[in-house]
Amino acid sequence: MGGRTRATLGLFVIAIETFATPASGIAASPGERWTASDIVTAPQVSDLAMSSDGKEVVYLLHTANLAANRPEFEIHLVTLADGKDRVIVRSGFLDRLRRIPGKNSWSVLADLGQGVQLYEVKSDGTRTELVRNPKTVLVGSADGADFGMAQMPPMQVGIASYDWSPDGKRLVYSQLEEERTAPRTLTGDAVREASARRRWSPHVRVSFFLRTNGEADAAIFDRPASDRIARYFGGMLAWDADYVEYGVQVDDNPTPAVQRYRWSFRTRHATPSGDSTALAMQDRIAGPGGGELEISGEGPEQRLVEKRPDGTSVDFGKAMISLSDWRSPGHWRAADGKFAVVAVKIIDEAKYALLRLDRGGKSRRIEVPESLSHCAFDAGLSRGACIREGLTYAPELVVVDPASGSVRSVAPISARHLRLERFAKVRRTWTNRFGYEAVGFVLYPRGYRPGRRYPAVIVTHGGDADERFITTEFQWSYPIQLLLDQGYIVLAVNDPYPAQSEQLQGALRSWTTCDGRVAPAEIQRLVWLNTVESYRSLVKQLDDEGLIDPAKLGIAGYSAGSQMVNVAVTQTSLFRAASSGDGGYLEPAAWRYQQCTYRAIYGGAPGDARARGNYTALVPSYRAAPGQAAVLQQMAEPRSGAVEFHEALIAAGVPAQISLYPGETPASDETHLFHIPSNRLAALQENVDWFDRWLGRGAGASNMQTPPSRRSSDASRHRRPQEQAFAVP
Amino acid sequence: MGGRTRATLGLFVIAIETFATPASGIAASPGERWTASDIVTAPQVSDLAMSSDGKEVVYLLHTANLAANRPEFEIHLVTLADGKDRVIVRSGFLDRLRRIPGKNSWSVLADLGQGVQLYEVKSDGTRTELVRNPKTVLVGSADGADFGMAQMPPMQVGIASYDWSPDGKRLVYSQLEEERTAPRTLTGDAVREASARRRWSPHVRVSFFLRTNGEADAAIFDRPASDRIARYFGGMLAWDADYVEYGVQVDDNPTPAVQRYRWSFRTRHATPSGDSTALAMQDRIAGPGGGELEISGEGPEQRLVEKRPDGTSVDFGKAMISLSDWRSPGHWRAADGKFAVVAVKIIDEAKYALLRLDRGGKSRRIEVPESLSHCAFDAGLSRGACIREGLTYAPELVVVDPASGSVRSVAPISARHLRLERFAKVRRTWTNRFGYEAVGFVLYPRGYRPGRRYPAVIVTHGGDADERFITTEFQWSYPIQLLLDQGYIVLAVNDPYPAQSEQLQGALRSWTTCDGRVAPAEIQRLVWLNTVESYRSLVKQLDDEGLIDPAKLGIAGYSAGSQMVNVAVTQTSLFRAASSGDGGYLEPAAWRYQQCTYRAIYGGAPGDARARGNYTALVPSYRAAPGQAAVLQQMAEPRSGAVEFHEALIAAGVPAQISLYPGETPASDETHLFHIPSNRLAALQENVDWFDRWLGRGAGASNMQTPPSRRSSDASRHRRPQEQAFAVP
Repeated sequence: MGGRTRATLGLFVIAIETFATPASGIAASPGERWTASDIVTAPQVSDLAMSSDGKEVVYLLHTANLAANRPEFEIHLVTLADGKDRVIVRSGFLDRLRRIPGKNSWSVLADLGQGVQLYEVKSDGTRTELVRNPKTVLVGSADGADFGMAQMPPMQVGIASYDWSPDGKRLVYSQLEEERTAPRTLTGDAVREASARRRWSPHVRVSFFLRTNGEADAAIFDRPASDRIARYFGGMLAWDADYVEYGVQVDDNPTPAVQRYRWSFRTRHATPSGDSTALAMQDRIAGPGGGELEISGEGPEQRLVEKRPDGTSVDFGKAMISLSDWRSPGHWRAADGKFAVVAVKIIDEAKYALLRLDRGGKSRRIEVPESLSHCAFDAGLSRGACIREGLTYAPELVVVDPASGSVRSVAPISARHLRLERFAKVRRTWTNRFGYEAVGFVLYPRGYRPGRRYPAVIVTHGGDADERFITTEFQWSYPIQLLLDQGYIVLAVNDPYPAQSEQLQGALRSWTTCDGRVAPAEIQRLVWLNTVESYRSLVKQLDDEGLIDPAKLGIAGYSAGSQMVNVAVTQTSLFRAASSGDGGYLEPAAWRYQQCTYRAIYGGAPGDARARGNYTALVPSYRAAPGQAAVLQQMAEPRSGAVEFHEALIAAGVPAQISLYPGETPASDETHLFHIPSNRLAALQENVDWFDRWLGRGAGASNMQTPPSRRSSDASRHRRPQEQAFAVP
Repeated sequence: MGGRTRATLGLFVIAIETFATPASGIAASPGERWTASDIVTAPQVSDLAMSSDGKEVVYLLHTANLAANRPEFEIHLVTLADGKDRVIVRSGFLDRLRRIPGKNSWSVLADLGQGVQLYEVKSDGTRTELVRNPKTVLVGSADGADFGMAQMPPMQVGIASYDWSPDGKRLVYSQLEEERTAPRTLTGDAVREASARRRWSPHVRVSFFLRTNGEADAAIFDRPASDRIARYFGGMLAWDADYVEYGVQVDDNPTPAVQRYRWSFRTRHATPSGDSTALAMQDRIAGPGGGELEISGEGPEQRLVEKRPDGTSVDFGKAMISLSDWRSPGHWRAADGKFAVVAVKIIDEAKYALLRLDRGGKSRRIEVPESLSHCAFDAGLSRGACIREGLTYAPELVVVDPASGSVRSVAPISARHLRLERFAKVRRTWTNRFGYEAVGFVLYPRGYRPGRRYPAVIVTHGGDADERFITTEFQWSYPIQLLLDQGYIVLAVNDPYPAQSEQLQGALRSWTTCDGRVAPAEIQRLVWLNTVESYRSLVKQLDDEGLIDPAKLGIAGYSAGSQMVNVAVTQTSLFRAASSGDGGYLEPAAWRYQQCTYRAIYGGAPGDARARGNYTALVPSYRAAPGQAAVLQQMAEPRSGAVEFHEALIAAGVPAQISLYPGETPASDETHLFHIPSNRLAALQENVDWFDRWLGRGAGASNMQTPPSRRSSDASRHRRPQEQAFAVP
């Protein structure tokens, strides 16, 4: 357990985390030095389940097998009585670990040599096949593969998703089926789609079946794999005593509209559900009174309300929260209806917790200073288990008492990561020139000394800068811990959070559904320029406080973050170096297959005279100019927009480097979230080198401690072929 | 031999082909009706060779195997004494049929079940392996294939090229070798290239070996497959008694510069040849006096001159010709140096012939009213053989007497094609508003009646509208013969020919070498707008002559022709319908990997403010506008520029359709020149339907004869899925 106090923590802690002033009270916990391998092998818990009797917990751990150079998955079983943790299944792929309702065993999608199939796993590790589809389909970023889950190598998949009815008597599962068809001429939209893809995909259908005890499996519906609700969200099932409800995608917008259907167990047919189409991702969360929980009201005034079946409402008070956030989902209702528990993200505190809601309208948080995530409960909702983790706090398994709110440590998830240095961190909230508030964290370097100015790097990815420990969806290939180790300040920064404002939400909705309600210039202002203004305000504050050296600023972000990086370096002169990961959105090259959102942002095609001003205002490659930040682009695929930006940087004489990381074979690609450990290690190192080159020692950061190991790697980087690619300014 | 007079033709005919006025003297030779299959199976002779004694001719025939749905190649042997033609080899791939100097046998690259290897073939059809590389490499438009020859399915290739020394004692051959390397990170230009490719390619080297009688094969040089001179032009070898000379590509411009090396037979090493680098494609043609033939002087004043080794020159007179044109190459010198024969294209007559050049400076044409192409001679240069063919004249084998210039028919190449209707044709030369002359042909419909106006379709591809019979490089998937059969006039039109003007040549050079000498606006004017002006002038003339209905004009072209189609329909309102084949050049999407030529045309990147006016002036997708011609795009690959144009047409409300024709499997593509017979048949039909829809019967062409077979296909097209794709204006 070593190194950290494991005591029962705050009972219904009211979040009064003091906003420490940056130059005072900054305390790190000393520990071993971080290496790139520690980042790549960081433990990521994706699922957690508790036995009905509350005595055992299983969790699904995703890490990396450095020797085999591939991802590694493990199912761990912990007996809560003694805190003993043992691995009961190990595999190259595991997903969706669940308790089988009414049984003392677990179900999981696993590749155990037969492609991905559905298995039952007992606590002693024995496995039984539950459903097997022998005609597997290749899935992944590869020639001939159905587009796959992020962060996985190409693999064979038989069963794509499953869900148990709450009583465990029914099971819905989906299987992938490849359609073998003769070559045919493509026309219209299909040609456009082919022009947007690097790898070709077969035609795949997703077929859903219902298994009921003692009956033959019944086919309930099937959809093309292009239906993202069917393919990646298991059809968004909802169970009732008489039917199972599923959703079907009715348009192809980035946030698609969904029509729901009810498949009756009696008639064995589906009928459209009474609801009209709604946007996807709107899950239904049960309140204690059997109604539905909603966030109502606008911005800072928004409240958590239960709309009960009898038409009445119960108000649980102000709540700047996201209910059952996909990063830590879950909601549970006590059988007697006295209370419910909901997993929430507390948006303006950038952390995850539980909310206990009593029938009478009382709401209480169950929380720790960092986050409680991935929670699960026993059958009676008398005991729960969660992962306690934070931005600088290595994950541990805790048990939660929903009655008292007490939280007790059980076992660390990774003993190694517990021994590593825990960097100091201060959460900040600030308001930008446009009047919007953003949340982020200042992370202080090893050996931080107040009164000195440090080079600093912003790391950003939408709203993912929060109290979780090394998630690839936030950190990607950015070496936060290595930069801190070497004397950089790291700023983990979020976009202004949409929940604070109807205007922001409206702009985002117009962007992703192209509803045409918000004008392109206003979308540009509220989405990208607004976040740039947040960077500017934060940098100004930290400069005023004497914390950072404003001449040595960097920024890093992938995907949505790469949009921000590319916009920030072409709209401001704040930064000297940037790392932009696997993104090419906003560039004209993507217009032809991004028309919905590009119309929203730009008002038309790049060649449309009326749209031209909007392109000139925002397109990064149109705005590349001498003197701007040096830009490294790390790519999983040679996206045309990214190459367009790189070429524009080179043409403008800006130092620029683009690196395409390889897949396992020439017939496959690295995935958007890198999955090949050797690529992850190399990409981390490439970023260290890049920021060192433009911000670091070469630029005279005299206050930085350079450990010998880093010096040697610093020398070796001069041999890297990537270094040949950029033009020195 | 039926249906056509086979007599000895014009002895040193001086080309006084009358320019028939369109409304008079138009005579077709009646024959059987054309079908789409007749176009797809049209015989294409690619190589021809003659035995040393002049008694036998072999030729390589490329046609289509409709039953097997693949290309078909045959080596035919004709004994000249009796005109008997028999097939001695049949295969899915044959290339580069040559006489082996000093032997009574032939050599050819052939796929006979071992991948493409080099064979010796005897007149009785027996084959011996000459060189075999067992480690073959996949070549073609397919995943994992080295980019291949046009018009072929993916195939295994061992030997890529070969050449005999003139005495037959030495042989140079090249083999392909795949480099197996661990996955590696790509940077810079390699990422840009990956972003431009639909299919991934392995790293392939082209290794050249010299075989000398009685010695072990010697490795002489090797190059990456990206060296187009090595990969596709066999290293551009030139033989001397003491060395063999080869060229190496030194830049990657569309017209690359080449450095030549001499590999000494004595030292067994290469040294740079005295010449500095020169542009590729400048072959050396021997004159009768042992010097080099050149075209000297400008435009209409240009003359054919031999520069002799002693520094003197011999002037053969005015010559608007292309020497040893790649479409019908060849040059031969008599052993006694009394005369030489050169295959030429007579540019302003759009035909191919031979030129006999005597040592004293006398020049005489050997020709027929159509073309003499693919010629070969016996060892003593006392007898030759050629293909006689024309735009409407099915090919036949002829023998040529270089002394007298007589031409005698020997055998038809395809009896079937000889029986088909031979449409009337008139060659025209005209000058456009910019002052440049163009050459083309008016092809008259079946049953043409003077005094009526006809709907008309321009078919164009650079300078390929000439006296050859159904070449895919000109006609592609355009159903010229079917349109003529149905009552359209077809205009086979060339760009203004560059040889007439230093200005035109300079603009083309600046375009393809980006030498920066000609300004972008002037390149646009002299290349694309100049050709558009030629269309305008021709249409005006034919309208004035009452020949065409100017409200029913179409235009069709692929590749370079697709550029012209896309420019013509967005710069003029001449056309009502267009078919644009497999091209996306000129669109901004291609900027990032076409920077050399795009800088020449546009002066910078699409986002560069200084370049913007040049983009607005020419980019087809920037100029799509309501009311312009309906555009069908037929694609072999989903090229981004083509999709960009299609999307712009749809956005502008222009009727548009894009069709992507499939490869053999999802892992391969149809090739730029289609090679799959079923695709070729479907693409021809799709064009017939498209022009019928916008120009034809539906639009009330009352004078058109509609045979019953066409009516039924006209009805059936309403069921074609392609028809769903376009928006009716």
